[in-house]
Amino acid sequence: MTSSAAPAYRRMSVEQRRSQLLAAAVDLFGHRRPDDVSVDDVAAAAGVSRPLVYRYFPGGKQQLYEAAVQGAAQELTGRFAVPSSGPPTQRLADALDRYLAYVDEHDAAYGALLRGGSSAGTARTDAIVADVRRQAADQVLHHLAVTGPGPRLAMMVHSWIACVEAVSLAWLDEGKSTPLPELRAWLVDHFTGLLLVTATTDPESAGVAARVLGQETSTSPAGSLAVRLVRLAPAIDHLLA
Amino acid sequence: MTSSAAPAYRRMSVEQRRSQLLAAAVDLFGHRRPDDVSVDDVAAAAGVSRPLVYRYFPGGKQQLYEAAVQGAAQELTGRFAVPSSGPPTQRLADALDRYLAYVDEHDAAYGALLRGGSSAGTARTDAIVADVRRQAADQVLHHLAVTGPGPRLAMMVHSWIACVEAVSLAWLDEGKSTPLPELRAWLVDHFTGLLLVTATTDPESAGVAARVLGQETSTSPAGSLAVRLVRLAPAIDHLLA
Repeated sequence: MTSSAAPAYRRMSVEQRRSQLLAAAVDLFGHRRPDDVSVDDVAAAAGVSRPLVYRYFPGGKQQLYEAAVQGAAQELTGRFAVPSSGPPTQRLADALDRYLAYVDEHDAAYGALLRGGSSAGTARTDAIVADVRRQAADQVLHHLAVTGPGPRLAMMVHSWIACVEAVSLAWLDEGKSTPLPELRAWLVDHFTGLLLVTATTDPESAGVAARVLGQETSTSPAGSLAVRLVRLAPAIDHLLA
Repeated sequence: MTSSAAPAYRRMSVEQRRSQLLAAAVDLFGHRRPDDVSVDDVAAAAGVSRPLVYRYFPGGKQQLYEAAVQGAAQELTGRFAVPSSGPPTQRLADALDRYLAYVDEHDAAYGALLRGGSSAGTARTDAIVADVRRQAADQVLHHLAVTGPGPRLAMMVHSWIACVEAVSLAWLDEGKSTPLPELRAWLVDHFTGLLLVTATTDPESAGVAARVLGQETSTSPAGSLAVRLVRLAPAIDHLLA
């Protein structure tokens, strides 16, 4: 820091000041329940006066919360992006690791946003959450090399994403007692299992499953699951008569 | 109906009148979004004056909505109960049929309640929804003959219920284009698949899976899935090397 740093901060441009306030809001709303954050908290965190916050965000707390949720959504969807190479279930595992790390870092905010019931939630924040889900589904479909999925495949991906959210919330409720790598491995197994059962009735999903399995290896998540599932064969033998 | 029926209605007891108003509210809130129901609508449906509604429900629309959600929760949880005999996945299919029929009959209300975003939703209605989920999980565990499930099995059941809700909402969004029996069969396959993959890592779930599969037949939902899954064997052969 040079001695000119302080004056430079005071002479922030409109855009810089807005970004600074937004960063403070993203940080506060990202680590507390929205009901536990006030405009005064944002002002204090940014080292500015309350009226200055209102000059940039005339909608006050509501506008700050929506902007913070939008910022969080951008960070979260940025984490979905993983390289398009290697076994698809390994890519899914990598993306899930980043997603679950986000849930861990922002537990209070994640819980409040997805559980609803906060007075700060609005149609706009609901729309942002819905958009994050759509982008998550798009990423999964991208790694399955599918564009324009049919209804069953789309519903499959959508319902798995709902499971990831439900499991994330349940993990927070249980006090994070399950180690994250274990939780992630189970969620990937869940995805693979769901793809397999869907493939037994939906021709499009069968094609996707065949292609995905062709890219898997004996040590990838789907390969590991296949080995474990085959061990259950004796338990279903009587059903195949 | 005898000629004395009409006077008897006018001389309703407090409890009878309350039940009549509640029935009107359950019906209205059960078929429309809460934002599309007013106290006047309830009064008109019950053939009484607006002040009379307020005499029984001083909290007005909010109180009527909460009471209606409670009534709907009782009806819905009543549908979970199916006989404790036969293959467990067949029992699950029967309970799901009743659940999905409820979603079909009460589509607007179901969507509004679970999607949130309505001004009528409160901490109390959230708690009622959470209680319905708990009772659904208890019923599933009952048919699996499990009391006091460990964390992984509890999370498995919980996450499948979240999927059922997500799929129900997606089914409403797609304009109910998937036939209900097909949707139900897929959700049961999903359950069985999830139980199988969870059984590959969690000892308790492995015990439950073995017991459940022992009660299944070649024509039960799990038996049918087993036959279909085995056909996928060639696609995983290269993973078992």
